[in-house]
Order: sequence, then C-alpha cells, then structure tokens
Amino acid sequence: MLPQKIEQFKPGSSFRAYLKVFDLQKREKRNGDSYLSLNLGDGNSKVGAKVWDRVDTFISILKVGGIYLFKGDVGVYNGKLDLKINDVEQAKEGIDGFDKEAFVEKPKFDLEKIFIEVENLIKTRVNNIHLKKISFKYLKEKGELFKRHYGAIKVHHAYVGGLMEHTLSMMKLASFLAVHYKLDESLLITGTLLHDCGKLQEIISVPAPGITLEGGLLGHIVSGTIYVKQLISEIDGFPKDLELRLLHLIVSHHGSKEFGSPEVPKTKEAIVLNLIDMIDSKLRIFTEAIEKSSGNDQLFSDYIPFLQRKILLK
Amino acid sequence: MLPQKIEQFKPGSSFRAYLKVFDLQKREKRNGDSYLSLNLGDGNSKVGAKVWDRVDTFISILKVGGIYLFKGDVGVYNGKLDLKINDVEQAKEGIDGFDKEAFVEKPKFDLEKIFIEVENLIKTRVNNIHLKKISFKYLKEKGELFKRHYGAIKVHHAYVGGLMEHTLSMMKLASFLAVHYKLDESLLITGTLLHDCGKLQEIISVPAPGITLEGGLLGHIVSGTIYVKQLISEIDGFPKDLELRLLHLIVSHHGSKEFGSPEVPKTKEAIVLNLIDMIDSKLRIFTEAIEKSSGNDQLFSDYIPFLQRKILLK
Amino acid sequence: MLPQKIEQFKPGSSFRAYLKVFDLQKREKRNGDSYLSLNLGDGNSKVGAKVWDRVDTFISILKVGGIYLFKGDVGVYNGKLDLKINDVEQAKEGIDGFDKEAFVEKPKFDLEKIFIEVENLIKTRVNNIHLKKISFKYLKEKGELFKRHYGAIKVHHAYVGGLMEHTLSMMKLASFLAVHYKLDESLLITGTLLHDCGKLQEIISVPAPGITLEGGLLGHIVSGTIYVKQLISEIDGFPKDLELRLLHLIVSHHGSKEFGSPEVPKTKEAIVLNLIDMIDSKLRIFTEAIEKSSGNDQLFSDYIPFLQRKILLK
Amino acid sequence: MLPQKIEQFKPGSSFRAYLKVFDLQKREKRNGDSYLSLNLGDGNSKVGAKVWDRVDTFISILKVGGIYLFKGDVGVYNGKLDLKINDVEQAKEGIDGFDKEAFVEKPKFDLEKIFIEVENLIKTRVNNIHLKKISFKYLKEKGELFKRHYGAIKVHHAYVGGLMEHTLSMMKLASFLAVHYKLDESLLITGTLLHDCGKLQEIISVPAPGITLEGGLLGHIVSGTIYVKQLISEIDGFPKDLELRLLHLIVSHHGSKEFGSPEVPKTKEAIVLNLIDMIDSKLRIFTEAIEKSSGNDQLFSDYIPFLQRKILLK
Amino acid sequence: MLPQKIEQFKPGSSFRAYLKVFDLQKREKRNGDSYLSLNLGDGNSKVGAKVWDRVDTFISILKVGGIYLFKGDVGVYNGKLDLKINDVEQAKEGIDGFDKEAFVEKPKFDLEKIFIEVENLIKTRVNNIHLKKISFKYLKEKGELFKRHYGAIKVHHAYVGGLMEHTLSMMKLASFLAVHYKLDESLLITGTLLHDCGKLQEIISVPAPGITLEGGLLGHIVSGTIYVKQLISEIDGFPKDLELRLLHLIVSHHGSKEFGSPEVPKTKEAIVLNLIDMIDSKLRIFTEAIEKSSGNDQLFSDYIPFLQRKILLK
Amino acid sequence: MLPQKIEQFKPGSSFRAYLKVFDLQKREKRNGDSYLSLNLGDGNSKVGAKVWDRVDTFISILKVGGIYLFKGDVGVYNGKLDLKINDVEQAKEGIDGFDKEAFVEKPKFDLEKIFIEVENLIKTRVNNIHLKKISFKYLKEKGELFKRHYGAIKVHHAYVGGLMEHTLSMMKLASFLAVHYKLDESLLITGTLLHDCGKLQEIISVPAPGITLEGGLLGHIVSGTIYVKQLISEIDGFPKDLELRLLHLIVSHHGSKEFGSPEVPKTKEAIVLNLIDMIDSKLRIFTEAIEKSSGNDQLFSDYIPFLQRKILLK
Repeated sequence: MLPQKIEQFKPGSSFRAYLKVFDLQKREKRNGDSYLSLNLGDGNSKVGAKVWDRVDTFISILKVGGIYLFKGDVGVYNGKLDLKINDVEQAKEGIDGFDKEAFVEKPKFDLEKIFIEVENLIKTRVNNIHLKKISFKYLKEKGELFKRHYGAIKVHHAYVGGLMEHTLSMMKLASFLAVHYKLDESLLITGTLLHDCGKLQEIISVPAPGITLEGGLLGHIVSGTIYVKQLISEIDGFPKDLELRLLHLIVSHHGSKEFGSPEVPKTKEAIVLNLIDMIDSKLRIFTEAIEKSSGNDQLFSDYIPFLQRKILLK
Repeated sequence: MLPQKIEQFKPGSSFRAYLKVFDLQKREKRNGDSYLSLNLGDGNSKVGAKVWDRVDTFISILKVGGIYLFKGDVGVYNGKLDLKINDVEQAKEGIDGFDKEAFVEKPKFDLEKIFIEVENLIKTRVNNIHLKKISFKYLKEKGELFKRHYGAIKVHHAYVGGLMEHTLSMMKLASFLAVHYKLDESLLITGTLLHDCGKLQEIISVPAPGITLEGGLLGHIVSGTIYVKQLISEIDGFPKDLELRLLHLIVSHHGSKEFGSPEVPKTKEAIVLNLIDMIDSKLRIFTEAIEKSSGNDQLFSDYIPFLQRKILLK
Repeated sequence: MLPQKIEQFKPGSSFRAYLKVFDLQKREKRNGDSYLSLNLGDGNSKVGAKVWDRVDTFISILKVGGIYLFKGDVGVYNGKLDLKINDVEQAKEGIDGFDKEAFVEKPKFDLEKIFIEVENLIKTRVNNIHLKKISFKYLKEKGELFKRHYGAIKVHHAYVGGLMEHTLSMMKLASFLAVHYKLDESLLITGTLLHDCGKLQEIISVPAPGITLEGGLLGHIVSGTIYVKQLISEIDGFPKDLELRLLHLIVSHHGSKEFGSPEVPKTKEAIVLNLIDMIDSKLRIFTEAIEKSSGNDQLFSDYIPFLQRKILLK
Repeated sequence: MLPQKIEQFKPGSSFRAYLKVFDLQKREKRNGDSYLSLNLGDGNSKVGAKVWDRVDTFISILKVGGIYLFKGDVGVYNGKLDLKINDVEQAKEGIDGFDKEAFVEKPKFDLEKIFIEVENLIKTRVNNIHLKKISFKYLKEKGELFKRHYGAIKVHHAYVGGLMEHTLSMMKLASFLAVHYKLDESLLITGTLLHDCGKLQEIISVPAPGITLEGGLLGHIVSGTIYVKQLISEIDGFPKDLELRLLHLIVSHHGSKEFGSPEVPKTKEAIVLNLIDMIDSKLRIFTEAIEKSSGNDQLFSDYIPFLQRKILLK
Repeated sequence: MLPQKIEQFKPGSSFRAYLKVFDLQKREKRNGDSYLSLNLGDGNSKVGAKVWDRVDTFISILKVGGIYLFKGDVGVYNGKLDLKINDVEQAKEGIDGFDKEAFVEKPKFDLEKIFIEVENLIKTRVNNIHLKKISFKYLKEKGELFKRHYGAIKVHHAYVGGLMEHTLSMMKLASFLAVHYKLDESLLITGTLLHDCGKLQEIISVPAPGITLEGGLLGHIVSGTIYVKQLISEIDGFPKDLELRLLHLIVSHHGSKEFGSPEVPKTKEAIVLNLIDMIDSKLRIFTEAIEKSSGNDQLFSDYIPFLQRKILLK
Repeated sequence: MLPQKIEQFKPGSSFRAYLKVFDLQKREKRNGDSYLSLNLGDGNSKVGAKVWDRVDTFISILKVGGIYLFKGDVGVYNGKLDLKINDVEQAKEGIDGFDKEAFVEKPKFDLEKIFIEVENLIKTRVNNIHLKKISFKYLKEKGELFKRHYGAIKVHHAYVGGLMEHTLSMMKLASFLAVHYKLDESLLITGTLLHDCGKLQEIISVPAPGITLEGGLLGHIVSGTIYVKQLISEIDGFPKDLELRLLHLIVSHHGSKEFGSPEVPKTKEAIVLNLIDMIDSKLRIFTEAIEKSSGNDQLFSDYIPFLQRKILLK
C-alpha cells in the first residue's frame, strides 16, 4: 500500500502515511497505565491519534516536529477522525515518495513583497534618524524570523507570516492616524513595527507552534522591552526621552493591566497603538470565523471566547 | 460702578456684573435653613456663587439660562473665587452696556465649513441610495441642532459644535478603515454620522448644559435608535436587513454592556465604529488635559476619572 | 416495521420513525469532509442524530421545522441515544399513521384561561385610560402570538405559553407591591405586561426555538422599546411624561448595564419591575431543576450556570 | 442669654445651648497639635463643632451620648453651620429650662402598634410549632430592643423603630409571596423576622448610632446566626433539618458573597428573603431621597452611593 | 475467575472484582430511560462504570461507601477505562479473598506523629491559659476526627490526614511570623488550629468524600464559628474581647467577601492567618500538580482552575 | 523675629521660617488667574501653603527641593494649618541660624546595621555562586542608593531606609519559608533582594518624594527587570534557565495582572515572593495606621484605601 494523504483515510480501514508530529502528550488511564495522545499533519490537514501499546518505545522514537511513516487504524471519535497507531518508521527522503518539502507550511501570501512594503513604510514615513536606525537594525537582525513568524499560537494570525501581516496592516493605520491627529508619526510607526517583537522569543512556530520557557515566564511584553532596550544600547546617541517613549509603547500596548500591560497607555501614541492593535486583531478574528463558517446556514457563529460573543456570519 | 467682567473681580471687594445662570441648586444647611448654590458665567469664564438670605425671593426671580445684573461680594473658597450674592436685577438690553450677544457661547471653529465637510463626505463616499437618503434626511431635519450641539455635558467635546466636530473626525477614520479592511463604507459612514444622534434628545446645551428627562430615562442609545427607526419608516423601500444592520451600529456603539450598549458589536462595521469612537474621544481628552496643563511643570497629569489614569503632559 | 416513538428505540437496533427537525448543523470532520448534526423530536421527546454520508442530498431535503420519516440505527453517545440516519422520506398525512397534529407542542396549561386572567387584571387594576388603551391594543395586535410564545429559548419558561405564564405571575406581584408601597399601579402593571414584548421579535418558537436576526442585532429590550413607542404613537394624546416612564420600565428591566439594560432603574416602579422579574425567573429555575432531579438521591443539584450555584434539591 | 435651639443659631454670632454629643473624634493638625471634631444635636437637628483649645480638658469632660451646656461661636464651613466651642458645663435637669426628655429621639410612628402587627402575623401565619416557638422566644427576649432599634447606622431606616418597620414590611411581602409561590410560609416569615437580628449586636443607636466591637469583627450575619443557634438549642425537639434551613436564611440573606453572605441562597425561601430585603431597602432609599429633595427643582438626584445611580425625583 | 484488581483489567475483556462505590448518580437518557453512573475503587485506583439495565434493582442494592463483588465488561471511554456492570453481589469477608481492610484509605504519613507535633506546638507556644484550654478541648472532643479528616473534597490536601497536615504546616508558619512581627502568638496559633474546624461538619470523607447538608447550607466558616462559640461557652471566664478576636480569625480567614468571609481581616493576626492559608494551599497545589505530571515532557501544566493559571512543571 | 519651627506657628499670626519645598503646583482660579499651592517642611513636620500674588516671580525663584526663608500669615484650612506666603528669600548657611543639615530627613533606624544584616543573609544563605555574585554586584553598584531609598512615595515604608527595611524583613521570611517548603533558597532570597530594585528608577526621595518619567512610563517592574537583565549580562556563565527564573520573580511579584505583573507567578518561589510581599506591606500599613491613631478613642480606623477596609485599632 502506498502512503496516503489524510483526506484519503476511511473510518474502519487501516492506513499508512507520512505524518509530522505537531503535539505529543503522555497521559494516564484511570488504571495507571500510560498512553500517548498525538496531533499529526501531512502539510495540508491535521488529525488526532493515540498510541495505546508499547508507549515507551514510541516515546523514545517520536519527537515533536519529526516526520515518520505511521501505520494503524482509522477510527472516529467525537465526530472527528482519530487514529490508532500500531507502528512507526523513520521517514527517508525519496523512499516511497517521501518529500520533506511537502511538510513545510506554505505562506498564504508573498512574504518578500510584504517585507518590502514594511521597509518602504519605514523609509518614507519614519523621519527621526534614531527611530529609522532602530527600525532597520531590527529588520536586519531579526528580519528572516519576523518574515515567517506566526502572529499567535492560535486565535488569530496563527500561520506563517501572520506576525508580519498583522504588523504591516497596523503600520498603515498608524501612518494614517498619525497624520489625522498630528501625532509623532516616526515614533508611532516604529513602535508599531516593534510592539510584538517579543513574540519572536515567546512562541515558536517550528517544529510546531508552542510557547517557550521565556514566553511562559516573562511574556512577550517584557521580552520585547528587554530586546528593544538592548537594540537602543547599541545605537549611539539615542535620546533618553525618546527611549522611554518608545519602550512605553511596547510596555503599554495591551491597553490595561488586566490584559497584561504593567503600565497603561499614557501618551497619545500609546493609546493609538493599543486601539489599532485591537482593531486589526478583532477584524482578523471576524474574518477567520466567517471563512470557517462558509457554506453553513447559521446566522450567528458559535461563541468565540476571545471576543466573548457570537458574531453575525452573513 | 460699571458692570465688571469676572476677570476683574478681586477677592475681598464687592462686585456688580451681568451674569448668566448656568446651574442653580437649593440646598439645606444643617440647621434646616436653605441656601442657593449657583454657577454663573459672563460668556468668557465661570464662577461659583451663593445666596444665603431671602432665598425664596431669589428662587422666584432666577431661572437657569437667564441673565441678570448681580451685586455682591467676592470671596475665595477652596482656592477658587466664590461670590456672595446680595442683590439681583433683570438685565435690560442696552442699559449699562448690557449686550445679550456676549453671552452666546462662540464656537471654536467655523461651523458652516465643518458642516459642508460632513455633507461632502456623504455625497462622495456613501453610495448606497437608501443610506444616502437617510443621511441627508437627518441633516435636513436636525442639521441646525446638530451643527451647534455639545458633544457631551462634560468630559470631552463639551462645547458648541463639539458633537459635529467629533462626528466628522470619526467619519474620516471610518472612510479610511472601510477601504483598508474592505468594509461596507456606505453603512459605516452613515452609522458614524448617526451614532450619537440620540444626544440631541439626551442633553441640552442651552440655556445651560444638562441632561433631559428623556436622557435620564432612556439614554442616547435608545433615543437615537428610536429616532433612526422613525426616519427609516418614512423612507420607501428601505431594506429590512439594512435597517437592522444600521440600527445595530447605534445600539452597539459603546462596545459592551457595561458601557451601556444592550448588545455588543457583532459585525465588522460595528466593531470599527466602537473603536474609532474610543480613539477620537480618548485623544480629545488627552488634548484637553494637555491644553489645561499648559505652563504647568508637572510631568504627569492629575488622575483623569474618564481615562482612569494619569497621563504624560510633556 | 411500523413507525416507532423515540421511547421505543433500543441501542443496537435499527429504527423507523416520524421525526421533526429542530436543529440542523453542517459540520466538518478533521479530514475536511462534512457531516450533519441533527436534533430530532416526536412531540414527546427529543434525540440527537448524525448523517455521515450523502450529506448534500440530505441538506437539499431537510428543513428545520419539517417532519420526515427517518430510517437508521440507534447508537449511544456520551450516555445518550444518538441516531445514525441512513434514509429519509417526506411524511405524508395519513400514511403509516402519520398525524401532523402529534408534532405540535402541547401547552402545559389552559392558555385561554390564563389569557383571560391577564385581561381581567388589566380591566380591574389599570385605571389610567392611556395605559389601559395601550395594554388592550397590545393584546389585540399580538395576543395570539403572546399566548403561545416561549418565555426564552432555554433556561426558564422555555415552552409554549411560557412568556404569558411568566408575565401573568409577575403582574400579580406587581399589583400587590403597588398597593403595599403606594406605587403607580396602572403604570407598573402595564410595564409588566409589556416588559418582555420584544421577545416576540427576538426569538421564534416555531418551527423550532431560536434567535432571529433582529434578536441578535438589537435584543428584546431595544426591539420592545421600539415597538411600544410605535404603539404609543398610534394613541391620541398619550402624555409625553407617561410615555417616558413607561419606556423606561422596558429599557431598565434587566436592572443593570451588565445585564443588558442601557439605563438602570431610576423610578420605584422600575426597581420593582426588575426585582419581580428576578423573583419569578429564579424561582422558576428552582422549580425546573427540582422537577428534573426527581427520583435522584443528590442533596444538591449540579452547578446551574444561570444561577451560578448549586441548589438544594430536597 | 437663654439656651437656644440650633435653628436659632446665626453665623457670626455666639451661642449658648444644650446639646448632645453624637460623635467625638480627636484629630491632629499638621503641626502636631490636637483638636476635637464633634457632632452635636438638640433632639431636632444636628450641627458640626470644633474644639481648638484645651483639648485635654474637653476630652476628660465630654462623653459620646452625654448632654452638656455648650458656649461658643457660630461659623460656617463648607456651606454648613460649624461651631467653635469655647466652654462647656454639665447639664442639670430643670436648670435653664433643661429637659432631658427633649433629647430622646422620637419614633416616627407608634412602635407598640407595629409590634402588635408583627406578633399578629406570627400568630396567624406561622403554623409550624417550632418556628412559632422561636419567633415568640425572640420577641420575648429581645422585643424591647428590637422595637426601638435603628435599621442601620445610615443609608436607610436609620431611626428609632427602623429595624422593626423594615422587618414588618418584609414579613407582609413574605406572606404574600409564600402563598403565591407555594413556599414554606412558616419558615419564610420566621426567617424574615430573624434575618437582621444580628444588628442588635452589630450596631448601637444609643447613646449615638455606631458600630460595636462585635459588629466590626463578626458582622450581623454571623452574630445573628450564632444567636439564633443559641435560641434553637434552648427549644426541645427543634428538628435538625429545620434548624439548618432557618440558619441558611440568615446566612444567605445578602444574596451573594460579594455582599457578605458566606453562602448564597440555595432554597426558594432564601432567594425570596434576599429579594424582598432588596425591594424594601431600595424603595426606602428612594423614599428618603425624594423626601430630602422636596422643594428642589432637580429632575434627578445627586449620585446615591448605595444605589450607584441618580434617581428620578419627580 | 478470581477477583481482579483494577490494574489487571483489559479493555475488551470481562472482569470480576471487589470494588467500593464512591459515587452513584442516576441519570436520564434522552429517551427518558434511566442509567447509573458510578465511580468505583479498589483501594489503590479508581474507575468509572455504568449500569444500563435493571437500574432499579441495582439502586436497591448499591449504597455509596459499600463494597460489592461486581461483574461486567471493560470498555474505554474518552481515553479512560469505563466499566459496563452486568451483575453485583454482596461482598463477604474471607470469601474469594475479600479483605475489607484493603479498602480503607491508607494515610500518606504517620498520623499519630503529626498529631503529637500539633499538641507540642500548643504546649510550648500557646501561653494564654484560655487559648491553651480551648485548643486542648478541641483536640479532646474532635481529635480522632481531625486526625483522619480530608483537607478538602478535591483541589488540595484531599486525602486522609490532609486537614491535620495542612493545619500543622500553617501552625509552624504562624509561630515564626508571630515572633518576627511581634504578634499575639497564642492567639494566632490557636486561630490557626481552629480555622478550618468547620470542615469537620462541612465535608465527609467516609464512606466517600462529599459535602453535607450543613456544609452546603452554612459552609465551614459559619459552622466552625458556631462550634468554637460553643466551646468557649463551656470554658469559665473566657474573656469577651478574646472571644471576639478568636472568632474573627475564623470568620475572616478567607480574606475577602468574594472568597466567602463575611468580614475581612481587621487585625494583624487575621491578615497573617489568611496569607499563610494561601501560601500553604497554593504550594500544595503546585506540589500535587508537579507530582501528577512526573515523566511528562510538558514545560507548563494544563490550566489549573483553582490557581487560574498554568504553572511551570520543571 | 527669629525664624520659627512649624510647631511654633499660631493661626492668625504671621510667621518667618526656613522651609523646604516638597511640592509646588501652579493652579488656576475660576477667573483664570494663577496661584501656587505648596507643600513645605522644616525637617520635622510639614504644612500646606499658598501664593496668591506675584505668582510668576515666585515661580522663577522656587525649586522643588530648595530651602528658603519664607514670610507670611498662618491660616487654617479644613482643620489644618495653611500658610499664605507673602515673601521669600534664599536661605544662606549660618545666617539667622540656618542649618542645612536640619533639613535632611533622619532615618528611623541605623541604616548601616541593617545593610550588614542584608549582606550577612546573602553570605550565609545564598549558596548558588551566580546568585551570590549578582546579589553582591547589586549591593556594590546601588548599595548607597538602596540604603537610603524610600520604599514608596506614600502608603507604607515611605521614609529614608524604607525600601531596605522592607527588603530585609522579607528576606528573613524568604529564608524561613524556603527551608520549611524545601524551595530553592538561593533563588528566593536573591529574588527578594532584587524584587523592588526598579524602585530606584521609579521614584525619587530627594529633593522630594515623587515619580520619575521612567517610573510613570515603564513602572518599577519593567525597570527592575531591565536592570537585572543588564547585571546578568555582565556576569560570565550565568545559566539561561536561572536567568529566566530570577527575572520571573521580579516580573510576577505583584501576583496578578490586575496589580501590574504582566505574568502571574508560575513557580513556587514566585508564589512565595508575592505572598511575603503582601504580608510585609500589609502589616506595615497596620502598624502605621495604629501608630497614627494613638491616643484616639476610635475602635476602628477610618477607611484605608490601600487595604480597602477599616481596621481594628485596639
């Protein structure tokens, strides 16, 4: 049997497929025995799986982010496919049609083009020399990571390039609002570019999306602030007052203590940064919920925890 | 002694001045006697005042919004001028230099010019015929009131033309964001134009800023919704679906139940309307706080209740 | 095999039955395929069901509220019966003992008798002529709907006649409390009669209980206020002050902004209306929880979300 | 000069009057010196006062609840009379027209008549023999205190007989609602009678309204529960189940943990007791606010902290 | 087949085992039929079970806390073993190897040794004679129960001896902090000993952990306060002031009204008691979560509701 | 007239005194004129003051933190001394008995002795070499500042040495609890030493207590985290894992997002640090409130905002 794709799996049949491990949890049955709960994917879709026997053997083989040739049975659990794994082998390039490239998540849009838009916005709208310097320094140091990073583990912009897409969209709003309200455009755009830079430390998207030790202990607000402080210390003559205003944008961008900002926005630029972050993330959640519901007859969505409401789908 | 302006009053001296009554409260001393607490103005500045004797006589003469020739003594209370009223006469045009016009609050900007901007935005950006109709119907019916209305009794935009200034600023944001996010621009702009129309029923600015019976019992969200529903019922063929989406914008524009919206925003346009209302009102509060502090050496403002924070003044 | 009733279904057997569709959701399996999740009933009890194959065919046939002859297998899921649908036919009156009437939900009590009690209370206790007029106008326009309407989609009074039963119970309390506290009895009774009238727009009970577009976008408080305002505008000489006090009762009857009232109760009648609504709905939830637990040995109920507590069952 | 009444005091003059000390606080000036802040009354009205000199002498003479002949000057502070005390003497019955009786607060209504109503309600509506026993035991042990007790230190029912007036009003509601909803009327009426009995320990009204050590450390809910438990232990054969249900009414009558009930209402009787307590106390606050505003032209009251709102006064 | 232990059960096989009933719920299938949901244990581990047939027969036989010889089939539900019960017999000592003692939960540590530590702390650190008396009176009256009581039904210290272990740990902190801050050590240690004594009335651990009628209606704070008040009334000459301070410690030990203390801590000893309770219970939750995760590769735990967070496991 | 001390001032007299400016606010009268509101001190006590005339002249002379020879009149406002300033001169050492030293706030205890205690605790209890290094590096770099720093601007420990006193007290608790619960004592003690180090940037105590620009924009949690990160980067071989655990202690020490910690405590050490901070600061507030009330007859304190309660004073 040739390796299959998930969309070819049939409940009640057995399967054989190259699958990547996205998540792996050792859990306990009530009788004290262990089993493994897995989340597997083939580049296009994902599927849950369980290992009931020889748990220790499987644990010694499987790594999160690894790709393997799995064999087992296709079941259904709670209305979704759920695999029972019987066997596993290392995947070998070229054997049985295995192509590692097929497992790299494809971006939804042209990452390079968006990156250039980001650069152009800085070039044309950030006039302050120190802020221009720090912006390009950031893109130089972290550009490749920034380009491909997830915007979040889930909720919204949770895909390759999501962080950059979200950032660019906000930078355009920042530019417009800075002119409309006569704000410090250089500061607001730079702060927008950097506001989520701590996410590069907080979450990882490869081998699979997840939170890091630093992310869990410091959070992206503090990680980002430390990082930007470090960048500033490497730029000669960065004014102290400007440093504090820029760091303040990062520190306060969640808008309130309840949402994790240790200080609330106290400048006009900080207020605006917080609100355009809310606009861009909320609208993205609307878009993702509406896309997901397409073809469905519901007027209103199911309850969306992040928005604490049901939304209109039509 | 010729009538004076408030800025000429000297603590410890007596005064004689034409003053308008902005607020009038009958209060009780601990011993059960009554006194009057007044808020008076001469068109430029305002001052507190008390009537300790002949309270009933003064009550029968004074009306909120009326202008009178007051005599009395200038005191200081809690670091502010506080008048003791001894005598009052009706003001008579032309006598003693009395000029009623001086008591009409002057707008800070050219109301007609802003009104034309509002009209132009509707003309050029609202393409839906029903929405264009209701927008102009509103401006025709309520335009003169809308033009001069306060945006609020206090907090922000609390001056002649404040409501229109706030509305226009938001309409410009609405237009930009509608294009940026591919929203229904006609709907969003019309909803923005109408979102606070209930304030025309809720608050009065003449003779003095205050809340109405309807304002206290229904609030501007419900009053506005009832009014727009009435407008719609006078337009032939207004689609039911569009009606509900438009009314939803008004109903939900405070963003959450806690802030007085009986339903939370459930469409993208409603989310955006709520957030641009927050941007425009918060930035206006910043501006007013910074203007008020000019010449002051404080780094941070005093606590601003509406923002629940102190802001950076420099 | 003759069509069966749900109570005759046996896990592990097949079934054949006339069932009404109460809810129909198209959902997606992880592998991207669709399936249908149904909620079916035979007039007495309800049962969950799934369609795993030929989803599009089923979608083109089934309508929410329709009654069909279903065939399939009886399974158990999560301790409850769960059907697997294999086939469906249109139901035809008289064939195979099909009786459409059996699918109409039977009220728990005599609707006409309760309606007459409502009318009598208005006749005898509402003395104000305008309020008497609007009360009877409402019963004339909406009486038949009001008589059979659900009080809610779930939680409490979620059955035919529930709205009217709840309303009458509250009207009796209103009358007693109005006398006890010397309130405006005409106003309080009329406000009680009308307080939930927006539910006629907000929810539907046929073909199946659910929320409407208007319900989701405006909510029953705003819908009801708009409707009562409309009624008033059709009554000559309805005093403006009385109009605002009556509308205030509807607007504020949830008691606080958090619970969806855009204005809080500011009159004695409004305070009382809110609190008798709480008494009647909370006691109804107690009653329903206790009924549901009969024969059970538990001292305390499971957690009841609407009450945010467990209650004593004995 | 003959002793005066407070209503005869004139700002700027000196005074001589018999006054009772309701409150006495030693405070510190910024320079470290002490002064006394007093609250004095003559049986009809109250007035604030200060002692600036010979503070220790005054402290050794004055007791809260004592009546003295004061001399000093009448000033005005913050729009209210404020006395400067220069001298004090012990009051002597009959001298200078001193009549101790004039300083006893007169009840607003006939206490005996209301007490008989309370007794009659128990006699006629409490059928359970144990509950009838405990009700009369309470009235026998604490009747005289209960008859004259304040309902609260301030906020509502803060006058002689207030506790009993509030209790009787609630007992009438309890009786009606018990019949309407088929509750345990004996239990609900008894629980209503006893619900605030802990206030007899929590607050004192003579010599002046204030909180006790027990009130501050345990609160009236716990004090009342302990007391009722004590009563029960002195009644033979009081059923354990009934004891817990009765104590539960007292424990839960504030309705939620936030409001000081360590357990929330879990029986129908407990839910009703909480809500009729809210009805009676809220309406009383309305009544007191409206009475206080009489003759005032305001539409809406000032902000009332206990209700967290402004109310309609007309 | 000899009776088995749970750890010997195999999914897909039948079983025969002596098991104790920890929980028994009668539930309803959607078709109106009943089934039983059970929680069973063999002294070492626990397992869920269902009875689908002859429900009434099983109900008449099974009692919570009873031990029976069960027969049936081993299934898996939601990744956990789930038994289908087919038959049940009374367990008889000695027959088929049945040993009742095996079903008594074994404490994790030497209860007697800990009890002696408690006694020694009182002997050496409680100098106040009244407090020493009440402490030993408590240990005499309730010592055996206290020794074996659970600390809670679940969450933390939910095992034999948990209450005493938690209490002793807190008493040691109490002693240290009393010295460090010069507090009343006798009072603080006695209050710590007694703070949770109401749990002896609130929850039961045999036959199975659960809440009592008194627990649900009064809660352990009120139950404990009533009990300590009773103890005090049996000790001659216990000072009233000391009584109130001691009762205050129990009443306020949850720290805030939201957490069920009807009065908040108002003395230093009460503040400290609340905070050491938080320290000891939170650290215990950490310990239990970390123990449970051993061998797991997760950096952070799953969400822990009681702590409202995920914690670091490494 | 020789310069006086504040305690010699008499209401109604004039004064002449060397006073230090602690706070200086330019404010506006209602008539638009400016005045100055000052807070002045003589090393022992403080007093409020106003400048009504020649405001610009005074502004050009006075600096916060400066000491001047003031002349004016002693008034009383709101029961406190309030000066009217008429004239000011520069203070000159030695002239008229001026002694600058008298204006330096004296610590309440021996700073050097406490500092040595801090050092000793580190020496004896911090075994981890990296943590010992960073602790001493901190004391070396910032020791002199740390020694004299205020613990807060107000609320608690708001005096010279307050920060160090608070820190040492907590370090002792940290050491005890680390042993009691088998925590990482080196980590907990070092985290305790450093937890408030950001206060060195956040607030200044000379010339007068106040918040800095960095304090308002970043807050002491972020400032401290940045600073400690900087210290770590200067220590060779500081383990990354240890770095994150140490920074986590600072980041999370306020215990919840609402209180300004962007991440909540996720390790046992972080939980303990938060709770001992609460113990030490709350007990200090008790102590300060009780000291302030000495000689007062009140049972309970006035409402203490930081504790949100009234406390027992006896």
